[in-house]
This record gives sequence, C-alpha cells and structure tokens, in this order.
Amino acid sequence: MPRYGLRSVATENLVGRAPAELTKRYQQVRARTEALAARLAPEDQVAQSMPDTSPAKWHRAHVTWFFETFLLKRFHPSYSELDPQYAFLFNSYYEAAGPRHTRSARGMITRPGSAEVAEYRRHVDSAMTELLAEPLTDEAIELVVLGFHHEQQHQELLLMDIKHLFSLNPTAPPYYPDGEREEIAVSQADPPDQLAWSRFDGGIVSVGHEGPEFCFDNELPRHETLLQPFEIADRLVTCGEWLEFMRNGGYDEARHWLSDGWHTVRNEGWRAPLYWYLIEDEWQVFTLGGIRPINSDEPVAHLSYYEADAYASWAGARLPTEAEWEHAASANNEANEQHNAGELRQLLGELWQWTSSPYTPYPGFQAAPGAVGEYNGKFMVNTWVLRGGCVATAPGHIRTTYRNFFYPATRWHFSGVRLARNLT
Amino acid sequence: MPRYGLRSVATENLVGRAPAELTKRYQQVRARTEALAARLAPEDQVAQSMPDTSPAKWHRAHVTWFFETFLLKRFHPSYSELDPQYAFLFNSYYEAAGPRHTRSARGMITRPGSAEVAEYRRHVDSAMTELLAEPLTDEAIELVVLGFHHEQQHQELLLMDIKHLFSLNPTAPPYYPDGEREEIAVSQADPPDQLAWSRFDGGIVSVGHEGPEFCFDNELPRHETLLQPFEIADRLVTCGEWLEFMRNGGYDEARHWLSDGWHTVRNEGWRAPLYWYLIEDEWQVFTLGGIRPINSDEPVAHLSYYEADAYASWAGARLPTEAEWEHAASANNEANEQHNAGELRQLLGELWQWTSSPYTPYPGFQAAPGAVGEYNGKFMVNTWVLRGGCVATAPGHIRTTYRNFFYPATRWHFSGVRLARNLT
Amino acid sequence: MPRYGLRSVATENLVGRAPAELTKRYQQVRARTEALAARLAPEDQVAQSMPDTSPAKWHRAHVTWFFETFLLKRFHPSYSELDPQYAFLFNSYYEAAGPRHTRSARGMITRPGSAEVAEYRRHVDSAMTELLAEPLTDEAIELVVLGFHHEQQHQELLLMDIKHLFSLNPTAPPYYPDGEREEIAVSQADPPDQLAWSRFDGGIVSVGHEGPEFCFDNELPRHETLLQPFEIADRLVTCGEWLEFMRNGGYDEARHWLSDGWHTVRNEGWRAPLYWYLIEDEWQVFTLGGIRPINSDEPVAHLSYYEADAYASWAGARLPTEAEWEHAASANNEANEQHNAGELRQLLGELWQWTSSPYTPYPGFQAAPGAVGEYNGKFMVNTWVLRGGCVATAPGHIRTTYRNFFYPATRWHFSGVRLARNLT
Amino acid sequence: MPRYGLRSVATENLVGRAPAELTKRYQQVRARTEALAARLAPEDQVAQSMPDTSPAKWHRAHVTWFFETFLLKRFHPSYSELDPQYAFLFNSYYEAAGPRHTRSARGMITRPGSAEVAEYRRHVDSAMTELLAEPLTDEAIELVVLGFHHEQQHQELLLMDIKHLFSLNPTAPPYYPDGEREEIAVSQADPPDQLAWSRFDGGIVSVGHEGPEFCFDNELPRHETLLQPFEIADRLVTCGEWLEFMRNGGYDEARHWLSDGWHTVRNEGWRAPLYWYLIEDEWQVFTLGGIRPINSDEPVAHLSYYEADAYASWAGARLPTEAEWEHAASANNEANEQHNAGELRQLLGELWQWTSSPYTPYPGFQAAPGAVGEYNGKFMVNTWVLRGGCVATAPGHIRTTYRNFFYPATRWHFSGVRLARNLT
Repeated sequence: MPRYGLRSVATENLVGRAPAELTKRYQQVRARTEALAARLAPEDQVAQSMPDTSPAKWHRAHVTWFFETFLLKRFHPSYSELDPQYAFLFNSYYEAAGPRHTRSARGMITRPGSAEVAEYRRHVDSAMTELLAEPLTDEAIELVVLGFHHEQQHQELLLMDIKHLFSLNPTAPPYYPDGEREEIAVSQADPPDQLAWSRFDGGIVSVGHEGPEFCFDNELPRHETLLQPFEIADRLVTCGEWLEFMRNGGYDEARHWLSDGWHTVRNEGWRAPLYWYLIEDEWQVFTLGGIRPINSDEPVAHLSYYEADAYASWAGARLPTEAEWEHAASANNEANEQHNAGELRQLLGELWQWTSSPYTPYPGFQAAPGAVGEYNGKFMVNTWVLRGGCVATAPGHIRTTYRNFFYPATRWHFSGVRLARNLT
Repeated sequence: MPRYGLRSVATENLVGRAPAELTKRYQQVRARTEALAARLAPEDQVAQSMPDTSPAKWHRAHVTWFFETFLLKRFHPSYSELDPQYAFLFNSYYEAAGPRHTRSARGMITRPGSAEVAEYRRHVDSAMTELLAEPLTDEAIELVVLGFHHEQQHQELLLMDIKHLFSLNPTAPPYYPDGEREEIAVSQADPPDQLAWSRFDGGIVSVGHEGPEFCFDNELPRHETLLQPFEIADRLVTCGEWLEFMRNGGYDEARHWLSDGWHTVRNEGWRAPLYWYLIEDEWQVFTLGGIRPINSDEPVAHLSYYEADAYASWAGARLPTEAEWEHAASANNEANEQHNAGELRQLLGELWQWTSSPYTPYPGFQAAPGAVGEYNGKFMVNTWVLRGGCVATAPGHIRTTYRNFFYPATRWHFSGVRLARNLT
Repeated sequence: MPRYGLRSVATENLVGRAPAELTKRYQQVRARTEALAARLAPEDQVAQSMPDTSPAKWHRAHVTWFFETFLLKRFHPSYSELDPQYAFLFNSYYEAAGPRHTRSARGMITRPGSAEVAEYRRHVDSAMTELLAEPLTDEAIELVVLGFHHEQQHQELLLMDIKHLFSLNPTAPPYYPDGEREEIAVSQADPPDQLAWSRFDGGIVSVGHEGPEFCFDNELPRHETLLQPFEIADRLVTCGEWLEFMRNGGYDEARHWLSDGWHTVRNEGWRAPLYWYLIEDEWQVFTLGGIRPINSDEPVAHLSYYEADAYASWAGARLPTEAEWEHAASANNEANEQHNAGELRQLLGELWQWTSSPYTPYPGFQAAPGAVGEYNGKFMVNTWVLRGGCVATAPGHIRTTYRNFFYPATRWHFSGVRLARNLT
Repeated sequence: MPRYGLRSVATENLVGRAPAELTKRYQQVRARTEALAARLAPEDQVAQSMPDTSPAKWHRAHVTWFFETFLLKRFHPSYSELDPQYAFLFNSYYEAAGPRHTRSARGMITRPGSAEVAEYRRHVDSAMTELLAEPLTDEAIELVVLGFHHEQQHQELLLMDIKHLFSLNPTAPPYYPDGEREEIAVSQADPPDQLAWSRFDGGIVSVGHEGPEFCFDNELPRHETLLQPFEIADRLVTCGEWLEFMRNGGYDEARHWLSDGWHTVRNEGWRAPLYWYLIEDEWQVFTLGGIRPINSDEPVAHLSYYEADAYASWAGARLPTEAEWEHAASANNEANEQHNAGELRQLLGELWQWTSSPYTPYPGFQAAPGAVGEYNGKFMVNTWVLRGGCVATAPGHIRTTYRNFFYPATRWHFSGVRLARNLT
C-alpha cells in the first residue's frame, strides 16, 4: 500500500443510481478523512517520519488533488484551480499527470499549511458537489467511485503514518487520549483458545473478484488455480506466542530466517516487533492510545514478512499462499452466509495477514488505459501480498479478494500472522 | 546463484557404480577448475570486484573446503587438515559449519596465495582419492556427487566474476587472448530470422525433476500446476532488437519500467546492458575475449530482470513463467528425441533466461536435514528464477528443470531474454 | 555557530546595576525572539530542514531551557518545572546537563507544539521576573547575561534555518512578504567602486577581547601575535564579481580549489552560491523576501570556505587571517572614533567574512568550570573562523573580537568574502 | 602524507656534483623500494585495503611514473614509453599531468602485475641511467632529487599500507617473519623514566627550513613567529600510560574529547589504539612482525589526532604547536651538536608526533610553477601537522622542519603523542 496504483476499472452498483446517492457517499468519505485529521495539531500534520510515510496534511491534499485532476479538470465545465502549484505538490507518483515534488521531502513543505489544505478541500468539495448534481457518464462515475476507495486507502495510511511519527516522540503522545476509546492497534481478540486447523482439499479453485461491486484491477481477472491439500489456522498468532518465540531465541539465531531476513535483523537490531519496548523488564507496546503492557491474548502486530516467515518456520508451519487464504476465506464466508458458523476467526478487519505469495499480476492481467491506470502493475516486484484488512481500514473497504502489498522488511503497517500447513 | 544453497539430496546413477567411475569423475571436475584458473595470474586471483563476487582463488579453495568438510572430516578415518584456519576462511555461508570470514572482504585475504591454494587442493585431492577407492555409503556418494555439482557452479561463478573484474580495468584485459578461441560471452546465434511463436494449450501440467539423475532439491517435488494457453518465442532477443529498444527511448522513459526498476535505472545511470560501451559513436561490448563491436545478430546478454521486464513490456509481450518455460522446453526436448526438430532454439547453454517467476519453494518442498541442507530455502525471497544455463555453464551441468536465481537488479551473470504472450 | 559552546565567563557592565535594568534587558531579548517567530505558522516551526538546522519552536524552547536550567533551578528558591520531559527534549548538547534528544530528529517532535512552547516561555519568564527582582550574586548575573547572548545567537540561527527550510519549498514562500520591508539577506551596499586596498605594517599586535564588556570565552585571553605586512580589501566581493568568477570557469576547473573543496564541488554539484537559481537564463537568488534577480552591486552571500578560498586564489589574492582582520577592523574603528573616516567598509553587520584561520584556542585559553563552560573548546577542530556579523545578527551582538566558526563545506549562513594580500 | 603534494623546489647539495654521485643515489633509493617489496607475494601487492591506501605494486609503479613523466619525457632525447596506458594508471592526482584512474579502485587493477611492474621499473631505470650520465640543468637535477624524496615517502606509505592490509587477514601474517629482525612498529624505547619537562622561554623565534639542503616547499619560507613560554615532555607517551587512560574511562566518556572526536569514537566503536586487540583478557598489538603482547614501556602508536588530543586533556596538558615542537627540537639538536646531551628523547625517527597545529601555509608561501608544484597547497585544509618521522621513514629522509599531515580521524600511520604545557 505504500505506493499502490490506481487499480480500479470495474464498475460499481453506484453506476446508474440517483445523483443524491453519489453525493451522500462523497460527503461521508470526505468527512471521515477530516474527522481523522481533527485529532491532530497543525504541527502533527506536517512532519514526515520516514521516506515511506507522508505528512497528514499531504494525505488530505493528495486525495483532493485526485478528484481535482481526474474529475473536475476533465468533466466540470467551469472549474478553476485554487492554486496551480498544488498539482505539483500533491501528485504522488503519476508520471503521466505531470512532474511532482520529491516524495522523501514532503515534510519540508510547511506551506500550504493545515488551514490552507482545509480551504483546498472545501474548494474542491464545492465543485464536486456541483459536478455530482448533474448526470455523469459511466466513466466519470467509475472515477468518482475510485476516488472514494483511493481516499479510504489514504485514511488507513494516515493512521499508520501518524502512529509511526508519534512513536518517535519520547513523550509518546496518544492519538486517542486515555480513556476516550478502545485502542485501535489491535482489537479485542476472541480468547486465544488452543489454535485449531481448518482443512481444505485443494484441487482447481477460482480466485479473484467477480460481480458488479467495485474492486481494484489487481484483483482481476478471476481465474482458476490448482491447490494442493492444506490446512490453515483458525486464528492469528498471539503476543503470548510471539513472546515464546522470542524467549526461544527467535531473534538470536539464523536458523529459521530467510537470508535477507537475517541480514535485516542484524542490521536493524530487531529484538521484537515494531513498537515493542522493554521497559523495566516488562514488554510494553506503543499504540494509537499510548504505551501500555503487552496483552498476551491479542494478535501480535507490526511484523515484517521476514518475521512472519521465521515464526512460521520456528512453529513447524508455513504462511498460506494468497490463493489458499482467499479460498479458505471465501468458503468461510459462504458457510457464514448459510448460517453455519465458519471455523475461521479474525479474518477481516483485524490485522493484515502476510501470505507467502510475491505480488505478481494475475494471468491475463491488463493495465487500464490512460493516466489513472497507467501504472497498475508497476509495483508488482519485490513486494509480498497481505490479505484481510485491519482495524485501521475504513469501514466497508475490505473484501476477501483484496490484495494489499508491502516490501518484506517494512513493519509500520498493522500486519500479523496466520499459519498454514501442508496436508499429505 | 550468487548465494546458492546446497540443494541436492537426490541420488544419481553414480550410486552403486564402481569406485573407479567416481574417481574419474572427481578428477575431471577438479581438473576443469584448475584449467579455468590457469589462465589467471596470481594477482588476478586475489581481487574481489564487488560484494557479489569472489576472488578466483577463493572459489578454488571454497570448493575444496566443501569436500574436506562434508566428506573427509566425516568419512576419512585418518584425515588431518592442512591448515585449521582454512575452515574459517573458506566457509561461504554455512552457519552450522562454524563461523566464517566476512564475505565482502574476501579480496583482502592475500594469504594463503594461489600457490598455497593449489597445495591445499592437492592435499584434499590426495585424501579424496584414498576415500573414493574404498566402498562408500549411499549418503557419502550423494555428498560426493553434490560436491561435483557444487564445484561446477563455482566454475561458472569464477568466469562471471573474472569477467566483471577485468571489465573494471581500463586496459580491458582479455581472459581469452586474441585469436586463441571463440568468445565465450555469447555463442554464434542462428541467423536471427523473424522471431516465431510456439503455441501451447496449457491445462494441468507437471513440472519439477523426476528420475534417478541428480538434481538440486529446489527442483523437487515434481508437481502439477495449471497453465493458461500461451505462446513463447522460438529464439532469444538479439542485440539488434535491443538497440532498437534503446533508440526508442527504452532507458529514457518510465513508461515500461517497474517502479523499482526505473529507480535503479536512474540511480545507476543505466543506458545500455552491462559491458556495453559507446566508443566513438559505436556500441562495443566487453567480453572474455576483450572489447569488440556489437554483433546485431547475437542474443543480448548481461541484463537485469528489470531490463528484461521493461523490454518485454515495450515489445507488447511479457516474460514466461518458469512453469511455462519448463513445459515448453520439455515438449521441445521430447520432440527432438523423436527426431522431429523442436521449434525452439537457444534453449540450453546459451544464456540464462529471465522468467517472470519469483523464486519460491515448490509445493511440498522439504529442506534436507543437517548442515548440507540446512539452508536450502533461505534464498527464496527477493530473487527471480532464470532457466536454461549459459555458455559459461559447465558441460553436462544444465537441464530443463534447473532453477537458477538472482536479484532483479544484478547484471554480471550471462542473462538474456525470451518473450512470451497470452493466448486468448 | 552550528554547535557553538557556551563561551562566556567575562563580566559585563550589567553587574552591579539596578535589577530593573536586567529585567528590562531580559524582556527585550525575549520579546525579539517571539517577534521573529510570530511571522511563522505552527507548521513552519516544526520542520527541520537538515541535521545542521533546528526547528523554530525548538530554538524558542531551547533558549528557555537555558534560563530554566542554569538560573531557575539553581537560584530560584521555589521554581517548579512546567514539564519534566522538556529538560530531555530541549537540551542541545550539554552532556553534564543530562541526556538529550537526538539532534537530527528534532523535526519529529511535533508535540509540544508552538502554543505549548509559548506557554513554556511564559512560565519561565514569570519565574525569571521574580528572580531578577531580587539581588543576585555576580555569578548569577553573569549567567543571565550569558543567557541574553545565547538567545541572540539563536535568533540568528532561527533566521538562517527558516531561510534554508523555505528554500526547499517549490513555492518559495517569503519570510518577509512582498513590499513589507527591505530584504534581509544582503543589505544595500555602497556603490561597488573599484576595490581599494588598505595597508598595514604588521609587527607585534594584540588581539582578543579586553575591557569590562561581555565577550565569549573564545575571545580570551587577549594576547600578542606577530603579523607580516599585509593589505586588506576595503569592501566585500560583489555578486557581479562572483559572476565573473563563474563565467571564467570557477566551478569547472580544479585549479583554484583546495583538494577537499574540489571534491565537495563535484559531489554536491555546486555551480553557484547557495540559493542562486538559473531561471530562464537569468541568475536569481532566494532571500527571506522571496526570489528576485541578482543585484550585481551587492556583496555575494552564502558561500562555503572552499568557495571563498577558491575565489581568492582565482583573484590572485588570499583570505585574511583572523588576526589580520581583527587588527584592521580595530584600527578602522579607532579612526572612526577619532572622526576620521576609516577606509574599510562593510565591516560589521553585513556578512560574516571567512578568514583563513582554523578555529583554535588562543594561547592560554582556559575552559570555565562547571556545566556552562564544560565544553568551551570542544568545537575547536575542523572549523574555520568568520568575523564581522551579518544582517541577521541581533542588534548589539557583534564586535570586532567576535569569533564565529563553521565547517568549511557549509553554506546556509550569511557568509561572504573580503580579500587580503601579502606586502613584500 | 596520504595525498601529499610535490613539495620541493629547493636545491640540494647534489646540484653541481659529479653525475656518478647522482646515479649512485638513484640506485640506492630505487633498490630500497624493491627490497621492501621483495618480502611480498604477488597477491600481497595487488590488494588495496581502504581508499586511503594503495597497493604495493601501485606504489612501485607510481614512483617510476614520476621519473618517466617529469624527467625522461622532458629531458631524455630518445625515451619511448614501455606502455602508454601506464600514464593513466599510475598518475596519482596531478591534474595537469593528464587524466588518471580512480584512486579508490586501484585494487581492481590486477594487470599489469608485479612482474610487469618490475619490467617497467627496469625500463625506466635504464633510461634514467643514461640520462644521469649526461650533464643536467639545475632544474633537472632538482627534479631528480625531488624524485628521490618522493620515492622515499612512498616507501613509508608502502609499509603503512601493507601493515593495514595484513591486519585485516584473520591469519595475521607478519611482514617480518618471526625471529628475523626487530619489530618495526615501535622501537626499543629508553626506559620510561618519570616523564620530565623541558622549559622554553618563547619570544620571537624562527621556524622553517634554511640552508642549501633539500626541503619540501611547505617548509618555506623560514619566518619569525611569537611563542609564549612553554614546556614540553622529554619523551613520548607509553603504552602503559595509555592503558591507564583506558582504565580511567578514556574511551567511555565525552568529557575530554573534541566534539567531532567523540562522534568518531562512537561511530567507529574505538576502544583502544588501532591494531590493539583484547585477546583472552590481554591487550595485544598487531605489528609488522605479527601479533604480540603490549609492551608497557614502548611509545603508544597508531593514534588519531582526536585520541592524542583527548589524552592530553585527560593528562592535564596539551599538544605542542608545530612551532613549539620545531623550536624545541632545533634547540635540542644544537645542544647535541655542542656535545651537551639534549634533554629531549625520541625526537626523530621514532613515531610521528601530533601537534595542535592545523596544516596551513607559512606566511608568504608560494606555489611552484608547473605541474610539479601545481598543487603544493591544495591539501592545506582539514589536516593536522605531525613532526619527527617514524621507524618506517626512510633513512635520511627526516629533519626537524619536516611537516607531515593527516586528517584527524586516521590512524594507520605510525603516530604517537608528546605532551606540552603552558608556563605562566
């Protein structure tokens, strides 16, 4: 997700609906971004904690630039820019959409400030409201819907990025001040029963998106693939289990690590997941609610692919492929829909779950034409697929076919581990 | 191959044969290494041109250390080391085999020199000859055979590494002095006819090694996989075609590149394949025979995965998956065996051919027990599979199921491109 | 000045004066800092543009921490901290004053924000007002006076740092909006007459501070030194002259450069002074008032030592030693005081003037005892002395004996060139 | 000395002597280089251990290139090059003498090898013998003499560099095999009596070279300078004293270190002088004779300027300025010549002694014209002066006015500490 593409070309059921419905959805999505940012001071919104992250006010401006560039400038007959320099400042990586500011120096752009960004948002919202009041072509509606999902992705990035930024402050400021609400980093897990395994026969199965609902283009085309028999864990690995891995020398021995992973462990001095701190002999964790002791029962979060893979090896298991994960998740969903409780827990909206699958195009994948789809596949190298969404994912944004991806050494995303095993 | 694992646990038909046959094979393999090194001065054998490469005398010593460590110390009743420090100096990356010298500083180890390494080789050869004269267990024979293939891999590395080293010398010394023999960098290609496409129906096919012959463990287990219909080019991309790509802005525009690939092009200042030099307005190429003009008809070599992928995109095609490549190559071989000329040319022993497949374990892959097999899978991340061997590969070392692998940005290997396309 | 020490142990005429005078001076100094910061938005105050610079709100807090640590905690009987974490966040480099936050990550500390820093300042100001109303020991008064000069140094740093930060913003925001007031980067020069030379006989002369006025301890002790006859330019080098140097290949040839300087030119890609931009074939300069064309008559600014030295070599001259500069400046001042116009122009408050003198301790230099003086000399290596102050220096802060210092490759300070020559 | 310039334009008493004397001296100097290299295998001669060092065979070739370029090509009527590529490979940094190979990649140039370099030396020696047999201009004689001193400097560099290279080899090979001769790293010290101080009154004194003997141009012009009264230690600091510094937390506390020095200590992980190793709880030292225990009585060697300065601060003293050192050394020499034993020991030929003086030009310093003198002063920035020569310095090469210089963080030179103090 750090450098996702514009991935949608699919229609959504919003096509053909009344304009009021689109407008209402627009307002909901846009309002949620501002609500998330409202907890931040202007100073919080300008800092960029590392090249992978972006300042909060940049997120707010960039998603606005998206609507301005791909909707207003193309379809609004009388739109005029608030500031022509914004196109340069808030383009993320669309080469066909013109030059852009250096990604790693976004934290240096103190002006326009938070208030000017708010004004920019109002300027675009006003014009978008006008645009959405009129009949739109299917193409325009598709771009509007894509804009919704794009903005929802940045809502999650905003939370990831602000968590990382605050973690660098020795005063460990909470995004959610004490007592206000439940911590977002990890939700209340089901009691971590003895982990159980769910069996699947494999064979030829179909994966990928189908139906009229929205999806990103990397979920297409739906296609057949061949699975060996396998079983998959019914829940995520817990912090208590991770502590056992650590006590067992998990970070001390090369044995269970991929070669590049072990190299990273040594170079970075990793001793525990990101945001874990050993304070007076107790492991504590920094969350969006501040610092608190580890809860052994909750799923362990903020892991790299290397750590996930090493843990699986240590545990005598492996990570599921993304096809296995999707097949199991779909079967589970169908069972649930038939009022039989599916066996798998913590599937969606808990923690992104590393799969063993490198992020590659599906057979027959086609890049969409034009600037929006120009770079659909350009991130399909060196990254690994995660599935399932997380507590920071926008409501309604996740589905079983959704393919997220990150480099194997990054950890600032809300990522956890679900194990799998061969059946023979 | 830069950090390959010891990958074999399979038996070979040498098991059960007369000791004399093993001994003869041992002598052949060992003699070829020394023949390759004999063209080098002592000074040539000590330098390490970059962290990815190793000095020639290190290769000579390391393959010797392999026989010493895994055969002589375990199975020879009276073996004594020539120098106990060599175990530290010539271990490559086997953690279970003890500590080792820093990889990137191998060029600093001027002593033991070439002559001492030759003495070390003779010491081990003498003891191995004794060992091979006696009846051996199957396990020991398997390790001996593994040692043959291991040494053959280092013979190719030695040639790759010396080519890279010599390319850094402004005097461009030839490994094969002028006139002595045909250039090894690229063989005589068939006349580059109009490229033709060979069609395959796909469906469920089997890939992976089978039979009693030796293979590395990453070729196992043989398993079924599902292919879509596809077609594959009957020959490799030529230098002439690559020049066309370059003239068409291949290295100037982000359009056809993976994001990480484009970043590498800019950071490294790539303008052409490795070893290409624009000298007085003519493209020339550095080879093991020295510098000479480009031959438009021969296959283009020394490409990164990023370049191979960008070219395929520019050409309106894609790279084959490794399963597609193996399926096509096997079918072609069978056709040849039935005395029908297979359609595909330049399949084996020409240039390693990039596939679009990340290097991952086959379903059901099992690491071998013990130090030899300890790290079988530890390189299965961040690398891509190449198939087919090259002109520098030892005779008899290549086969259709052979899986080589490199990082996507490296170029010092003899690597080229064969295109593929979807069939719909 | 990037890492200056607390350098004063000298008394000032404020010792023995009425408390009201100290209080008034305290309020003046403190108010000027806030006036300088008042032009900045909260977002502007948090960003750190490079490791050498600090965020504006950090400057505001750090100078406050100084009064809190060295005055209030020692001499105020009932002072209580506003926040005990501030001591960690706002210590710059005083090891004896306890641990401190990493310098290069100051831009990550978004909280406390600008408003909390203002509150911190009021908290300390209130307690300081109480403290200053009471009779103080000479030692305490000296520390208060040191606090004044310390805060004035940071006022200049704040301006230097904000200029650097704004220069990174593609919108080039002005610190002084258009029309509001004269640009601060370079003042109106006298018309750049033909440069004239002022002659000095040399011999044994005295340099260093004397008298009861405040000075930093690096200006002590006053001592004799031996000068050869020399002459010194009566004005600074102008932008027009620098353009001539550039047109004459100044940045293209190694000939006039120190070896390390030439290495820096190549590595950094220097083609002109910092903040010069070639826009549509015209050289423009970024100033605190925004971007505008070069004025050929004004002194050239934002030069490294390497550039200053190379220019002097190209011009057939050299830089003055700091003793020569001080001797000439003192003589000039005396002449002015005797109502004879001194020959030298642009001596004080225009641009810091590079000398050829490495920053080393004066003979007999003594570090002051205690935390304040603990590190007086620890920056006396690898830096070069500049003299004369600049347009960004606080009023009343400069004098002829004042020794500023920077590394030879830095350029974000307001630095220029005055030439000197041997007389034989 | 790592990047010294060609510094001599002074005549030597060889001017005007018989050709036979020059020829004999030429042969002596040249023979000593080959004798030093004769202890090295071809492999030892090619490796470059770090960018600061050069391969042994490069030293042998570069000093030869000097005679070829500045003598044979200018003055020998019929000289023809052995190989025109050598001019590119063996130029060190003389820009006016044409382009050159990248310094940091000298270890990659395996060809020409040691034997070809020997041939190159013989080729030049033969032509030089012809040239020296004829009457020469004074200018040519001066260049020949400069070539002698230049080659002697590289003899010392060769020993420094080979020591550094061998120190990186886990087998710690000795340059002087056991028992063959006395260790060269540190000579037998006088028994380390209680350190005594020698007093000097200061006043106006003269420093710099005088007389007809050879000197480098950085020793000129001889000039007056003003010294305060001071005293200087009669011997160097010993290993035993350094151990006391270490036990007293010398490398653990910032207190006595220059700011840049402390930064280096932390970044480099310094715990002791270079080449000291704690082996089974005993401090041992790597020397050109191999590894052996520390001798408490001998002078401590291989220190950076930062370490020398920190030690002096810890010991309540300081380093001498170069003028103080030279004044004391000259007085001592005069006393010795008058048959009164000078008080100072270990002055010349023991260890280079750090002074507190940055390396800057003497007042009135003039660069020599032409390529030889082109860069006389270009290293006069960021380096510090050392005096006195060392055990690796060629016989007859050192004198009291000799100015050596290194960056403050380097340690591979044979450098030690002599203390000084103010007298008040």
